[in-house]
Amino acid sequence: MNTAAPIADFRRYPMISALTAVQTLADRVSVQWADGRTSPFHHPWLRDNCPCAKCVYSVTREQVLEIVDVPEDLLPRATRVDSDGCLHIDWQDGHVSRFDPGWLRAHAYDDASRAERRAAKPQSRLWDSQLQLPVFEYQALMDDSQALLQWLLALRDIGLSQVRGVPTEPGSLTSIAKRISFIRESNFGVLFNVQSRADADSNAYTAFNLPLHSDLPTRELQPGLQFLHCLVNEAQGGESIFVDGFAIAHALRQEDPEAFRALCEIPVEFRNKDRHSDYRFQAPIIALDASGQVAEIRMANFLRGPFDASVEQMPDLYRAYRRFMAMTREPRFRLIQRLEPGELWCFDNRRTLHARNAFDPTSGARHFQGCYVDRDELLSRILVLQR
Amino acid sequence: MNTAAPIADFRRYPMISALTAVQTLADRVSVQWADGRTSPFHHPWLRDNCPCAKCVYSVTREQVLEIVDVPEDLLPRATRVDSDGCLHIDWQDGHVSRFDPGWLRAHAYDDASRAERRAAKPQSRLWDSQLQLPVFEYQALMDDSQALLQWLLALRDIGLSQVRGVPTEPGSLTSIAKRISFIRESNFGVLFNVQSRADADSNAYTAFNLPLHSDLPTRELQPGLQFLHCLVNEAQGGESIFVDGFAIAHALRQEDPEAFRALCEIPVEFRNKDRHSDYRFQAPIIALDASGQVAEIRMANFLRGPFDASVEQMPDLYRAYRRFMAMTREPRFRLIQRLEPGELWCFDNRRTLHARNAFDPTSGARHFQGCYVDRDELLSRILVLQR
Repeated sequence: MNTAAPIADFRRYPMISALTAVQTLADRVSVQWADGRTSPFHHPWLRDNCPCAKCVYSVTREQVLEIVDVPEDLLPRATRVDSDGCLHIDWQDGHVSRFDPGWLRAHAYDDASRAERRAAKPQSRLWDSQLQLPVFEYQALMDDSQALLQWLLALRDIGLSQVRGVPTEPGSLTSIAKRISFIRESNFGVLFNVQSRADADSNAYTAFNLPLHSDLPTRELQPGLQFLHCLVNEAQGGESIFVDGFAIAHALRQEDPEAFRALCEIPVEFRNKDRHSDYRFQAPIIALDASGQVAEIRMANFLRGPFDASVEQMPDLYRAYRRFMAMTREPRFRLIQRLEPGELWCFDNRRTLHARNAFDPTSGARHFQGCYVDRDELLSRILVLQR
Repeated sequence: MNTAAPIADFRRYPMISALTAVQTLADRVSVQWADGRTSPFHHPWLRDNCPCAKCVYSVTREQVLEIVDVPEDLLPRATRVDSDGCLHIDWQDGHVSRFDPGWLRAHAYDDASRAERRAAKPQSRLWDSQLQLPVFEYQALMDDSQALLQWLLALRDIGLSQVRGVPTEPGSLTSIAKRISFIRESNFGVLFNVQSRADADSNAYTAFNLPLHSDLPTRELQPGLQFLHCLVNEAQGGESIFVDGFAIAHALRQEDPEAFRALCEIPVEFRNKDRHSDYRFQAPIIALDASGQVAEIRMANFLRGPFDASVEQMPDLYRAYRRFMAMTREPRFRLIQRLEPGELWCFDNRRTLHARNAFDPTSGARHFQGCYVDRDELLSRILVLQR
């Protein structure tokens, strides 16, 4: 069977099941699949998704048809499964549409098909201090797209990884970040240098300990991935600490649902301020997705503005905030490791909180470089590698 | 009166009203202002916001205190308004905090103070085809920070502007964008060239008409500001069209509340796909903020994936989508103008939808350059200019 119908995509949609029958109803076409599933498709949906060369520009595979240019009451004149196994529709106005059965099944919106797609969505794997740290080799990631894909899937689902064997020349972080995509710039630069400086514009650029935090909670969209690359580390102290913010939120939800609710509901302002910039953004510390799952953690005590909640909410907010901070200090959640030259951390900045112990800048040099790549770029790269 | 207490900020907080009295209660301190307002501050809030040099690092003005290191039941031993007019607190553990009355008033969270701050938030000014287009001169924006501020406020509140007198060398867009901040890169580059190309990776790079849309609805965070700079425009056609997406959403809410609700509630997938990338993001076309106001429009018919809604929702979604698209075509909303060389559009890409009429690439050359700057950078720049 040659499923020759074009599709408006660069992905391939393998045949899951053959079309066996099609029935035209008043407002929809109902198709029957060989595996017994029935999928309804409303007439406007089918007309809207016609992949023919008049409706979709073949070079960009983007739609040129606008559905508002088709009469609202347009009906099929005839429907059939054609000799290629495609759904063939002759419309009353003379237009013809053909749908590849692999594409059609992948976009079916009957309850079973939608539930299947929901179930296939990637799930976060929660971790604690016992995490078997996912470690990758620089050269393999540079040379081998399958190794690259495994790294990116670990970042998506676990949110923490270490890469070893990275050159220690300043700027060499760029090559590995660009294996994913372009770097997200910020007011701290494209690459930022994490070194103790007298003129620090962030506590990150001091020798102080930094409590567990996400970077740039002061922006509407926190950076997706953060890289921290060790060039030199001769100073005493300065160990890296990580916790899975999703695991802590999950535990908080179980152990103290009221505190969890306060952190989901009450917005908190975060601020990055210096002589040249004044970033302020308000959002709750824990964000939930549409299905009520923990989707993001936004947290940096040193960037937090004064709480601005009602007089009634304020005591609850302090209780919840103290509880959350106390949990980030619990050994059960914390992974502690000193980064050595030629190693880098890459982690999900919207999930995995990171911290640094204080170090002694008089005991030796310490120079890390960092950068950000956003989640959109990570997910796009994964989809391309999976094609 | 010399209000010498340091503050953990680079902003100034002018004195609104003097502190006249302070009373210590079981869980809070209650202060009285000269204008009659009373503001409660809970003990942990005051201890948390202590601006002293032990609690805040004076160089970065970022907090080093973590409130979880202070006993939950710490109380003031004594409170008073000191000779500088500051709120002075001696804590039971010997720590001393002093609060500048301007800063304290700006962060008071009694109901009246919070309502005042809400009321002072910038409001969008809705517009239609009769808009008096805000026009600015390139050289003034480059030289004069007050002119720059006026432009940025127009972008924030109206969401559409034109700049004239811009050099027509390729790349000169960069200088004016950088008057705000760095440019947001995308898979289309830092600057993108809008020209008709045989190997287009977007319908934007054809000569087709483009219906009203936002750029990159395929990303979690749509770009905040979009620039479109005309270098050459000798082709017939290609006029720019703008509508205020907030005005259309507002009208839809009045005229067809069911359609409005469908567009606020049902997520729609948008896709940017080519041989090297595969961006997909799902969100409703109309986003509301926490107070139920229209906060964002996400819309590009040519980047839309097949609707994935339940069988029950699908007819409602099509009806709502047709209605919204039809409204974007109504003359009452549309501002139409041809851009000439040396002019540029700058607009709020998350509010103001833009379109282009088809042009005839055989009739003459046409070359625009574009770029993005995010809303965070716009708002930060405004705050710095307003200091």
